[in-house]
Amino acid sequence: MASGKILVAQGGGPTAVINQSLVGVVLEARRHAGIRRVYGARHGVRGIVGEDFVDLTQETRANLEGVAATPAAALGSTRDKPDLAYCREMFKVLAAHEIEHFFNIGGNDSSDTVRIVAEEAARAGYPLRCIHIPKTIDNDLVLNDHTPGFPSAARFVAQAFAGASLDNAALPGVYVGVVMGRHAGFLTAAAAAGRKHPDDGPHLIYLPERDFSIEAFLADVKAVHERLGRCVVAVSEGIHDAAGKPVLASLGPELERDAHGNVQLSGSGALADLLCEAIKHRLGIKRVRGDTFGYLQRSFLGCVSEVDQREAREVGERAVQYALWGDRSGSVAIQRCGDYAVDYPLLALEAVAGKTRTMEDAYIAASGTDVTDAFRQYLRPLLGASFPEAFRLRPNPVPKVLHRD
Amino acid sequence: MASGKILVAQGGGPTAVINQSLVGVVLEARRHAGIRRVYGARHGVRGIVGEDFVDLTQETRANLEGVAATPAAALGSTRDKPDLAYCREMFKVLAAHEIEHFFNIGGNDSSDTVRIVAEEAARAGYPLRCIHIPKTIDNDLVLNDHTPGFPSAARFVAQAFAGASLDNAALPGVYVGVVMGRHAGFLTAAAAAGRKHPDDGPHLIYLPERDFSIEAFLADVKAVHERLGRCVVAVSEGIHDAAGKPVLASLGPELERDAHGNVQLSGSGALADLLCEAIKHRLGIKRVRGDTFGYLQRSFLGCVSEVDQREAREVGERAVQYALWGDRSGSVAIQRCGDYAVDYPLLALEAVAGKTRTMEDAYIAASGTDVTDAFRQYLRPLLGASFPEAFRLRPNPVPKVLHRD
Repeated sequence: MASGKILVAQGGGPTAVINQSLVGVVLEARRHAGIRRVYGARHGVRGIVGEDFVDLTQETRANLEGVAATPAAALGSTRDKPDLAYCREMFKVLAAHEIEHFFNIGGNDSSDTVRIVAEEAARAGYPLRCIHIPKTIDNDLVLNDHTPGFPSAARFVAQAFAGASLDNAALPGVYVGVVMGRHAGFLTAAAAAGRKHPDDGPHLIYLPERDFSIEAFLADVKAVHERLGRCVVAVSEGIHDAAGKPVLASLGPELERDAHGNVQLSGSGALADLLCEAIKHRLGIKRVRGDTFGYLQRSFLGCVSEVDQREAREVGERAVQYALWGDRSGSVAIQRCGDYAVDYPLLALEAVAGKTRTMEDAYIAASGTDVTDAFRQYLRPLLGASFPEAFRLRPNPVPKVLHRD
Repeated sequence: MASGKILVAQGGGPTAVINQSLVGVVLEARRHAGIRRVYGARHGVRGIVGEDFVDLTQETRANLEGVAATPAAALGSTRDKPDLAYCREMFKVLAAHEIEHFFNIGGNDSSDTVRIVAEEAARAGYPLRCIHIPKTIDNDLVLNDHTPGFPSAARFVAQAFAGASLDNAALPGVYVGVVMGRHAGFLTAAAAAGRKHPDDGPHLIYLPERDFSIEAFLADVKAVHERLGRCVVAVSEGIHDAAGKPVLASLGPELERDAHGNVQLSGSGALADLLCEAIKHRLGIKRVRGDTFGYLQRSFLGCVSEVDQREAREVGERAVQYALWGDRSGSVAIQRCGDYAVDYPLLALEAVAGKTRTMEDAYIAASGTDVTDAFRQYLRPLLGASFPEAFRLRPNPVPKVLHRD
């Protein structure tokens, strides 16, 4: 065949660095003599079945570098989760365009799509290399130390909580910040990375890896508030009761579900408002404020970890190298091989596809409402060297003149 | 008397640069031979009546520079709005400590407090210089081109909408972002500064300077969604109907009020959720997401305009110079005297205190849902030189093979 054509697509939620991986694929592929065309699918798998491709061979290097540094997904993304019939349609289009290499950048669902398409190609005897390139702010891909997109989102969350904790110290009260993460608490746990002084917030962290009880939550908040006169709380949108029912689901039956049957957790301030109301009315604390970080944490223009940028670029480059030099299909992974150094092995698609990693017990404090030093050590190098630092005044009290103690 | 003592306080909502003004006062005062002690009041006017002072003369320069670059309010802030009796208590404490110069960093309410304290001192024949130093992300001080804190918050809002618009282009739907600003729409209007391409969001901007109608809003959203297949909306938390009733107030009677009698608008996702529900149910659009930027827009650690930093520092320094060299009381203002250059005149306290500026008509488009070029020209230099830029792929469509048009 030797068409010299490759196709790259992006899937799932946008991140600050998914375009780095895209550009890594494009520029690495363009320097290979055997590659004549680099196609991009518009809006992921949807653009594949719809045959909606753009020719990235005609893009300038300067603009590609600009796109690489831009958040979101430059090709467009989709929430479609292909079943077997959908994957067969995809394969039909890939074959019609004589695509030899298919690169799909995304999370669990995207890796599973790659797996099914690769199987279809093998069944048809069509020589298609299929590579999954990791991406998810949830950090929930198995066999990966971490996933591209997570470090930058973690940095946003850490900087947001560092600022919110300072704000809360200036105007005391209770502050609840709700962070993305349906099953894995990594991103919520990253709130801890913004702490510097022992009494900095977040003082309490609630993860989906632990069952949530509103009674225990209120008791925790009360205790911190009595001790410090204030309390900053980080809450995962995915918190659930002991029966696995999302706390948000107790709000009412009207919750939206996506194509995967998942309840919509993001894009609403309902969970933060629910928790704030409980604190106000049950604890009688007057100043209670809730923020839901929403889409800012994955798409904010101008908050990125340079480590994340570099690694996201490299997984794209390595994907092309595995496909072209190694003639292999698989899922590129990030594995830590030093403090701090990483390697990018190619794993079998079956080993990664459709599986979900959650936070390891060693990363969660015995209290269930904080992280461990092991987690802080794990996270720190991912945030990058330029992580901002907060300073406070030292206490030098002036003796009272009028109201002597 | 010649005690050589000055006192500085911070009031109202924290900002990214209010500590620059604090440090400007402290370092400028410390280089004057006549100044022996620089006191800071903890939690603003509350710390004055409570005689809760720290001695900033004992703070290192290195730590002060660290604090200057840190958001929020290092001395602590307060929402207390002093009446005459409160101001008399403040004056009693200032006199007891032989304070000769009183600097209060804050917005409208803080300037009014300075005015009353200055009047009390004059009535008592006590030689107290009182200077108000401007600060507010709302940008609503009269006779000021802009106010410290606004440019950095504006930058956060612009970067947030630039990212949200990219996210919305990748996964189309309707996105509603709610921005702080009770009476003045400047901060919401800053969302426009993140636009680069003609179809970038926000496509609609709703300001408190214009009456809000849910019917007109839904018609606007519908029109944009039909034209672009998506829609990004910036909404001020202060939007109200033609009778002046906040849109949020229609949610229910349980809204919290502060010491000023104002309904609590921030710290809840209710307004965004209300608007999103209306879009979903009335327009039948499925993917509708709402974010409330909340406290992130004023306190996020690591998003600041360097122009704002410099000016906030200078208004603190100038305040000390006016008090010590000019022996004058007043309100330091920022006035534009070039493109782009500013000057810092000292205005009479009565000219600024307690007055509220709103967006000039020349800054609001005739449609009422966008800003003008005049506003963009006004805002651009305030955001700083390092404002990030977003890039997109150019359209190079690949001819279809299977589904030929």
